[in-house]
This record gives sequence, C-alpha cells and structure tokens, in this order.
Amino acid sequence: MRTAVLLVGDELLAGVVADRNGAAIARALAARGAPVDRVEMVGDERDSIAARVRSLAARHDLLVVAGGLGPTEDDVTGEAIALACGGELPADAASVDNPVGSAAGLRLRCEGCDLWVLPGVPAEVDGMLPAVLAGLPEADAGLVRERVVATAGIPEVRLAERVVAAGFAPPPGVRLSYLPAPGSVRLRLAAPAGVPPADLDAAAARLREIAGVAALPAESLAASLVAVLAEAGRTLATAESCTGGLIGGRMTDVPGASSVYLGGVIAYADRAKVERLGVDPALLQRHGAVSEETALSMARGCRERFGADLAAAVTGVAGPGGGTPVNPVGTVWIALADAAGAAAEVFRFGGPRELVRERTVNKTLEMAYRRLREGPA
Amino acid sequence: MRTAVLLVGDELLAGVVADRNGAAIARALAARGAPVDRVEMVGDERDSIAARVRSLAARHDLLVVAGGLGPTEDDVTGEAIALACGGELPADAASVDNPVGSAAGLRLRCEGCDLWVLPGVPAEVDGMLPAVLAGLPEADAGLVRERVVATAGIPEVRLAERVVAAGFAPPPGVRLSYLPAPGSVRLRLAAPAGVPPADLDAAAARLREIAGVAALPAESLAASLVAVLAEAGRTLATAESCTGGLIGGRMTDVPGASSVYLGGVIAYADRAKVERLGVDPALLQRHGAVSEETALSMARGCRERFGADLAAAVTGVAGPGGGTPVNPVGTVWIALADAAGAAAEVFRFGGPRELVRERTVNKTLEMAYRRLREGPA
Repeated sequence: MRTAVLLVGDELLAGVVADRNGAAIARALAARGAPVDRVEMVGDERDSIAARVRSLAARHDLLVVAGGLGPTEDDVTGEAIALACGGELPADAASVDNPVGSAAGLRLRCEGCDLWVLPGVPAEVDGMLPAVLAGLPEADAGLVRERVVATAGIPEVRLAERVVAAGFAPPPGVRLSYLPAPGSVRLRLAAPAGVPPADLDAAAARLREIAGVAALPAESLAASLVAVLAEAGRTLATAESCTGGLIGGRMTDVPGASSVYLGGVIAYADRAKVERLGVDPALLQRHGAVSEETALSMARGCRERFGADLAAAVTGVAGPGGGTPVNPVGTVWIALADAAGAAAEVFRFGGPRELVRERTVNKTLEMAYRRLREGPA
Repeated sequence: MRTAVLLVGDELLAGVVADRNGAAIARALAARGAPVDRVEMVGDERDSIAARVRSLAARHDLLVVAGGLGPTEDDVTGEAIALACGGELPADAASVDNPVGSAAGLRLRCEGCDLWVLPGVPAEVDGMLPAVLAGLPEADAGLVRERVVATAGIPEVRLAERVVAAGFAPPPGVRLSYLPAPGSVRLRLAAPAGVPPADLDAAAARLREIAGVAALPAESLAASLVAVLAEAGRTLATAESCTGGLIGGRMTDVPGASSVYLGGVIAYADRAKVERLGVDPALLQRHGAVSEETALSMARGCRERFGADLAAAVTGVAGPGGGTPVNPVGTVWIALADAAGAAAEVFRFGGPRELVRERTVNKTLEMAYRRLREGPA
C-alpha cells in the first residue's frame, strides 16, 4: 500500500506557520500499517492543488489532504478536489464528521486512490484521524514496527562511534536512525513486517547496553525524571529565571507528574529571587543574578520553601540582550540542592534565545535525572 | 525565480519528529524575495533522495535540501546528491561552513539549478541560512510583502463574516489568508512585487478597523500583553496549576518582558497553593483545587506576594485523568486580581491534555490583555 500526504496552505510555504499535521498524520498511519512515502506542501491555489492531487492520487493507494477546507474565502481545496476529479465531485464522495470544528471532511475515490480531505486546524485533524484509520484495510502487511532508545548527555558523533565500535548491526531489513535534538539523541529502529518483534527487542536492548548510562528509561528526559523520582519516592521543585517556567511546563507535560512534582517559583525579577526564594540581597548585589552563588541560593531556598527532596534552579542570560563580558549571552548557571547539599555548574549555550532556553531546560532535567539515578557526584 | 525545499529523514515520514526546518527556510527565502512554491519530504533512502533532487532541480532555479548530512550511517544525502549529479559531485561543488555543528554543507549546480545541501538539525540550519541568503541574486522581483493582523477572542467564521459584511476586498493581486490557532486568528495579506507598500498598509489598517477590539497591537498575545503592560507602566505575576509554568514560559519568550513580568508560582501540588500562595486549607478542602474560590485566592495571594499590579491564576483539569462529574476534563478556572478586586471565569476546553493547556495559556493572556486595555468589565 502506497500512502501520501498533501498539506495545503500559503502559510506553510511562507513559513508563517510550522506544520504540525504532517507528523501527526504520518505517525497515525504508520502505526496502522500504512507508512507514508511522500509528503508535499502546496499553497492555497486551486489549480496547483488539483494538479498535485491528481499526480499523487495516480501514484498512491491512499492520499490524505489537509488544509484549505475551512469556511473562509482563501479555502479552495474543495473546488480543487472537484477539479482534480474532472470538474465535479464524484457521486460516491462522502462527508466525514468533524467532532471538533465546523468544516466537515470528504472521502472519495480519485484516480483509483482512496482520497481523504481534512481541514488544516491540527485539533480538527487529530479529531478526524480515527475515521481515516478505521477506513484502512485490516491487513498489517505494511506495518512498520519501531523501537526507540532515548539517550542524553552524549553527542550524536560519540554515540555513533560507540555503536560502530561495538560491532552493532541491526537485524536484516531493520533501519537504525539517529534523531538528534538539543541535549539528547534518540536511536530509532524501524522494521518492516516480517521481522519478529523479539529480534527488534533484542536489538533495542543491545543499543541500551552500548549507550550505557546515557540510555534513558523513558522516551523523554522529563518522563525519565518523573520515573526515577517515582521509583525513589522523591519529590522535585524548581526555581526558574531565564527559562521562565518552561522546566515546570515540561515536567507537567508528563501525565502523572503530580505525584512527584510539587511546583516551583518563576523568579524572573531580582525582587522575586529575594522575596520568593530567600536569596540574600547583599549576595545578589555582590555576585549578580547570573552567578554560582545566586543559583545555589535559589536552589536551597526553593527546596526549603516547597519541602521538596530535590530542587533545581536556573539563572542565565538567554539573550538577545543582557550579555556582559563576564556573562555573555548563553551563560547559564544550573544548581541542584538535596539533603546532601547543593552544587552548581555553569554552561555557555550557543544559539538564539529560544535555543538557549531549550538547552537549559534539557540540561536541567538531565542533571536532576542523573543526580537521582547515580547519587551526588 | 522558482524555489523548492526538500526535507530528508525517515523520522519526518514516520512522524517521529515534527519538521521545523521547512518553515524556517521558507520564511527566510520569502523575506529575501525567493518565495518557495514546493516543499517535499523524503526518507533516508539514497535512490529516492536522488530521484527527488533530480526532479525538483530540473523544475526550479533554487533548491535547498536539509537533512541526512550528518556523521552517522543513516545519513546518505551526500551519496544521493552525487548520484543525482551523474555519479560524482561536480568539480564546482563548494563546502558551506557550519558555524554551529560539525557537518559542513554543500553548494553546487545540478540540472541548471542552484543546489544547497544542509544538515537537518534545526539550529544548524538556522546557522547556515545566512550563507544561502547571501548567495541569492539581489533583484527583489519575486519579493512577497506581507502584513499580519493578529486577533484574539473571535472565532474564524465570525471574523470572516465581518470582513465580508464590511465589503473588504484586498488590493488587486493581494491574497488574504485566515490563520487560525487555539484562541486566536491571524489575518495575513501577501502581495507580489509591484503592489505599493502603502496600499498594503491601508488594507491592513482597514482589517484592524473591521476586527475592532479583537485586533491585537502585536503579532502574538504575549507580545501584546507585554506591550500594554509597558504602556500602562504596570507589572504582572502568575500563579499556575494545570499549565505548570507555560504562561510564564510564553511571557518570557518576549524579549523585553523582564521590565513588566515579575515572575510567578507554579502551584502544582495543593500544598504549594497553601504555602506559596496563601490559599486557606479549609477553603481548598471545602471547594476543591479546581474552583472559583481557589482560583480567586491564588490570584490574590500571587498579586500580594509578588507586589504586582495584576496577577493571573489558573487551576483546572488538563486530563487525561483527574476528571470528576463536577469538574470534567477540560474544566479550567482563570482568575485575575488587580487593585480594583478579583474576578474569575470558568471554561470547558475540549481536546487532549496538550490542547487544553494551550487554550488555557492563550485565554489567560487574552483576559489579562483585555483587563489592561479595557479596564475591569
């Protein structure tokens, strides 16, 4: 079964909106045995959409189109589909319920292809995907099974060297991919139908062994931290300056975090560091907000005030402004405090504001995870 | 000038990673007068990549390929490019500096097309885009100018009705798009070269007028809130339960927020609501964590403790667990407190956990913005 996705919208080609539907649709289809081999984006232009629909439909068994089906004048996908079908919608075109929004979807046959047309709002696509999946044939001949081993604290190149040095080879037909993100690399094994799941499990276990302490117990850093906290029966609180709440946001992404994550203080202003975390104003004055002393004091004050077993604190210069010769943009202090004491480490993260903040969040989660996993260094 | 982007990676087709490069590349190229008319994704397979490169290069003047250029075995884009060029890289292929990572890029001519090949890590793409832009011809014949009018608190359909009822027509050649997101809709005007910027400005001003109080002064809700706070010389603090820091995270995305956003408390556990925000334990016991009384108490306590002019507090059930008959999943109380008093409103947001949290963040920012803009209701 050959499957394609066509994403429609001027805003995608202009980069005004980053697409979220392609990944959601591809993931859902792959999990049901219909891996996508082609994703394309096209603007809100009737003739271009019609041409791409005809071309993709002729080469695929299943085509999912998303976008341009809304109520406004710039939404021309409906007309384009009719045009692609020779001028009007075929008699067997069926409406597809939209449980989230107002614009219904469409299902029809076009050039021998099973064609689904959905609106472009991600929540609506998510709400309508079950109908698409229910329409798939039962056979799982195309089913791709995957295993993901998440790692943190080891660069992609070093990890790859280790995998090669260990003589690792995936089972026949299985593909190993490296998926790098700031502060973490995921190893993904993807197997076509026919590869026994046990072989895939064995390969994933071998990769875990090779990655050693870099391998994480869950798919994300935050979920891994929640897991080790729960296992140890410990609680966490956070004190954030330059990340402004993003560490808490990431922790509370994990369902079930409420049993181990108590909360935290967003201490963006210096006054909040003093009054809400008990940082000594004289210390703040002497060493500055971005310093080892302030980070340690934030972590200690946070731990005490929240009654947490472990507290993590960050203070840094995310940029673009605010850099100094001593603390250039990207300088971040991260401190941890627990019953055994407190320690801080400094980092100089490169990149723009958003990336500095993302790297800070990931490094903090990783440090907290390691502290619990391995005990204080 | 015809421009295309090819994104390479099994993880994109599998939906394991949501692409971020397509939008970044498209936005940068459009801003320099080379709008993208085609974006495609392909897996890490040498022959498929080579076939797509040949096909796209033959139909475009500029092609940017991103992904599969890393140091690991699954990275086969280099080989694919050589294959697409007839077996080996042409003599004029030039290496492109990578200021962020280790994998250099490539620039060459292929099928008469200016072909750039970049790694797939978003930070590295961002770091290398300036080199691509510097290689573009000076002419801005293809330059697309845009104006964006952001709105909040009005559904897309209602906004479209108003635009139609007002008899609005964009200047000839200019396209109006509606870009809906949870809680906000952006109106985008895109003009080809030749449309006078003044006409575009006039059209945007007219859309603002039509949108009325729904029109925002900046491109995002958070930036609009920062703007009205700065204008009024007021400060904000936040108290977050179900959003776990995301409101603070969004505020501190805005450079310059430090002059108006003091910080906040992430009160995920009930104990944190009592001890860090001063919520009366008896009140919490009587009304529950998700209640008008608790939301009001959180907002008042937050305002007082941070010494802020305005405080916003949220408490709700983001799901998937935790729903009750009284407070089903999606129930969220949002409270605001200022010198004039405090008020709370309840919402029932639909969708999965992530969407409930996103809608809560946006609604809170919008309510705070309106309170400052329009005064207490």
